[in-house]
Amino acid sequence: MARIVMKFGGTSMAGVERIQNVARRVKREVEAGHQVAVVVSAMAGETDRLVSFCREVSPLYDPAEYDVVVAAGEQVTSGLLAIALQTIGVPARSWLGWQLPIGTVGGHAAARIEEIDTRALDAALAAGEVAVIPGFQGMAENGRITTLGRGGSDTSAVAVAAAMKADRCDIYTDVDGVYTTDPRIVPRARKLQKVTYEEMLELASVGAKVLQTRSVGLAMRENVRVQVLSSFDDRPGTMIVGDDEIEESEMERQLITGIAHDKNEAKITLTDVPDRPGAVASIFAPLAEANINVDMIVQNIAHDTGSTDVTFTVPMAELARSLDVLTQARERIGYTRLVHDTNVSKVSIVGVGMRSNAGVAATMFRTLGERGINIQAITTSEIKVSVLIEEDYTELAVRVLHTAYGLDADQAAA
Amino acid sequence: MARIVMKFGGTSMAGVERIQNVARRVKREVEAGHQVAVVVSAMAGETDRLVSFCREVSPLYDPAEYDVVVAAGEQVTSGLLAIALQTIGVPARSWLGWQLPIGTVGGHAAARIEEIDTRALDAALAAGEVAVIPGFQGMAENGRITTLGRGGSDTSAVAVAAAMKADRCDIYTDVDGVYTTDPRIVPRARKLQKVTYEEMLELASVGAKVLQTRSVGLAMRENVRVQVLSSFDDRPGTMIVGDDEIEESEMERQLITGIAHDKNEAKITLTDVPDRPGAVASIFAPLAEANINVDMIVQNIAHDTGSTDVTFTVPMAELARSLDVLTQARERIGYTRLVHDTNVSKVSIVGVGMRSNAGVAATMFRTLGERGINIQAITTSEIKVSVLIEEDYTELAVRVLHTAYGLDADQAAA
Repeated sequence: MARIVMKFGGTSMAGVERIQNVARRVKREVEAGHQVAVVVSAMAGETDRLVSFCREVSPLYDPAEYDVVVAAGEQVTSGLLAIALQTIGVPARSWLGWQLPIGTVGGHAAARIEEIDTRALDAALAAGEVAVIPGFQGMAENGRITTLGRGGSDTSAVAVAAAMKADRCDIYTDVDGVYTTDPRIVPRARKLQKVTYEEMLELASVGAKVLQTRSVGLAMRENVRVQVLSSFDDRPGTMIVGDDEIEESEMERQLITGIAHDKNEAKITLTDVPDRPGAVASIFAPLAEANINVDMIVQNIAHDTGSTDVTFTVPMAELARSLDVLTQARERIGYTRLVHDTNVSKVSIVGVGMRSNAGVAATMFRTLGERGINIQAITTSEIKVSVLIEEDYTELAVRVLHTAYGLDADQAAA
Repeated sequence: MARIVMKFGGTSMAGVERIQNVARRVKREVEAGHQVAVVVSAMAGETDRLVSFCREVSPLYDPAEYDVVVAAGEQVTSGLLAIALQTIGVPARSWLGWQLPIGTVGGHAAARIEEIDTRALDAALAAGEVAVIPGFQGMAENGRITTLGRGGSDTSAVAVAAAMKADRCDIYTDVDGVYTTDPRIVPRARKLQKVTYEEMLELASVGAKVLQTRSVGLAMRENVRVQVLSSFDDRPGTMIVGDDEIEESEMERQLITGIAHDKNEAKITLTDVPDRPGAVASIFAPLAEANINVDMIVQNIAHDTGSTDVTFTVPMAELARSLDVLTQARERIGYTRLVHDTNVSKVSIVGVGMRSNAGVAATMFRTLGERGINIQAITTSEIKVSVLIEEDYTELAVRVLHTAYGLDADQAAA
């Protein structure tokens, strides 16, 4: 007997037929002798509907009341799934965020789970009952309903899995796993059997949006084995696990696990910044104060004039605000021109294998160079190398790198 | 300063614009210096949508989970109204059924309010905050969400008004008050300024469906002054009050307050029932056991043969079940034929004034007789006389009685 958390997203819960389908999947795990908690999202589109009600009433809505409104979506699907399970002979009941309770901190609309009281949950599971838990919601210390922010149902599932010491947290989505890259760009992309938490974090944050980043971080900290799989077929998905499990089982592992890309970056260049101590700080301090996330940074070597150009990227959504901040700080920074470019994209190679292998980045640069793709900026981490290139070359870059690292389906055994 | 409960039905809450309209109405009462609690229904159509989800998943749904699902409708409108109020400068917050809590007994889907804890409510009102309370829901002793059954929001409003000792409970609906009869049948029907609880109970239970019967009974027991008025215009509505208030203020009150009709009755006749002690009991005992509500009963005088015919009515919805029960009990009862007729309707005159006036019923019988309308059965209470007639004559009967009792708008001062 294992303890399993199963999480179903909005597409899997969209309508009565799909909820009945989910119930049948849950029944299979119960019949296999497992104790099961199910975490559910609202029906696809429902949260958007509720959010737009709030926005229509007031763009400056009270987040505490917003939480009351939007939490209703998962409440509905929880009740319906409990009914669907009972109907096919599986004892089940819903446990709302305030009923367990799932204690949260950090205010409303973007709360964080602090502690889950598992007493009622453990008793229900021990009694052979499936616990259906609405994702995305909890209760603040003052007894009010909170929500975790959009996409928070993945985090709920991992948090429940950690609290109840589950053997596995299965995240059912409308894709059937994590791929070496976006299959719409590279049809020969392969589904990964296993990926490490850290790789998943890098793949998620740079564009392969399968799992909410926060949930992966939590799974890593709490050491929860997460599986991503499709709710619409029966094939195994992708396991997200610790480094140790990878090294034990896959000696022949690829250097590179996947290729990600992100078109939501904007490049900003400040020309003729004085090349003196504190100059760079005068640029990034006001951006940090404005809570703007700066990603890639390139500082050119100093001109003969004793000044330099500084280039960096920010998320597209924060470009306008960034330009404002920098314009206001112009005198303090002392630059000549403020130039921006949204026609860029970031392409990244990710893999724990690169830790112990030099030359991985060199392959990347050479491969792109051979196709005439100009690299405008570079950042690296222990398990990732990212380059900024002209946006039009994104798909080409992803494809040639996918082949260069031997990831194409006909190149390697899955 | 008064304490007021304002209750808004589904039509008044249907969509953002209407909710904003409701917020403006609430603001007016707050600006008049009153302490206000608002009880809201779900958006029109929403409860039906949620109920049909449950039914689609399983016709034999668990009522506890049904309650989780359908309570979401009022949760949404409560949060939205709180936001709408805050947006126009009125401090407000939502208090869900489990947050106050509104304690209920009697299980799920048809729970009864047992006790409302008003500590949080009183504190909020004293602090100048409007309390927005979802109607129709409460919490069972075991901490689960309950609902009061359809239409229960009126009952919630009256219960909240009683608990917080409100000076008035204003029920805003899509009609602007209680009329002397259905204005679709009698265009000259008048809106009543006042009506007693008992009259309202009779008018509601026999067809004038403005307020849920249960809520009127509760208002009478708890002595809550209820006003029915329109949320779409500013005219005064109808006050529902105790007898004392009527007699003090309206010396010239009409004998009859209103005329009601009900087409949802079915007539059953058993022929040749033995005319001996216990015979009638043998008919009605099995019906009572089956929880079937028998209304009008007529026992003819005994035939020469020592047998009699017994006629009575049951709600249309229970006709099939009634016929079943009676067929099974045939030997015990000993009747010859079991005949039924759904082509009947019940027309009633209602008014506290008839208590002290003989001859009221005689006017009814004579008026109907003059139009050739045959009376098939009669029942009377202290403030009501009902007759069963052929259904095709319903509208004619209502119109001639409305005129006969001087209720037409051009006959009397409103």
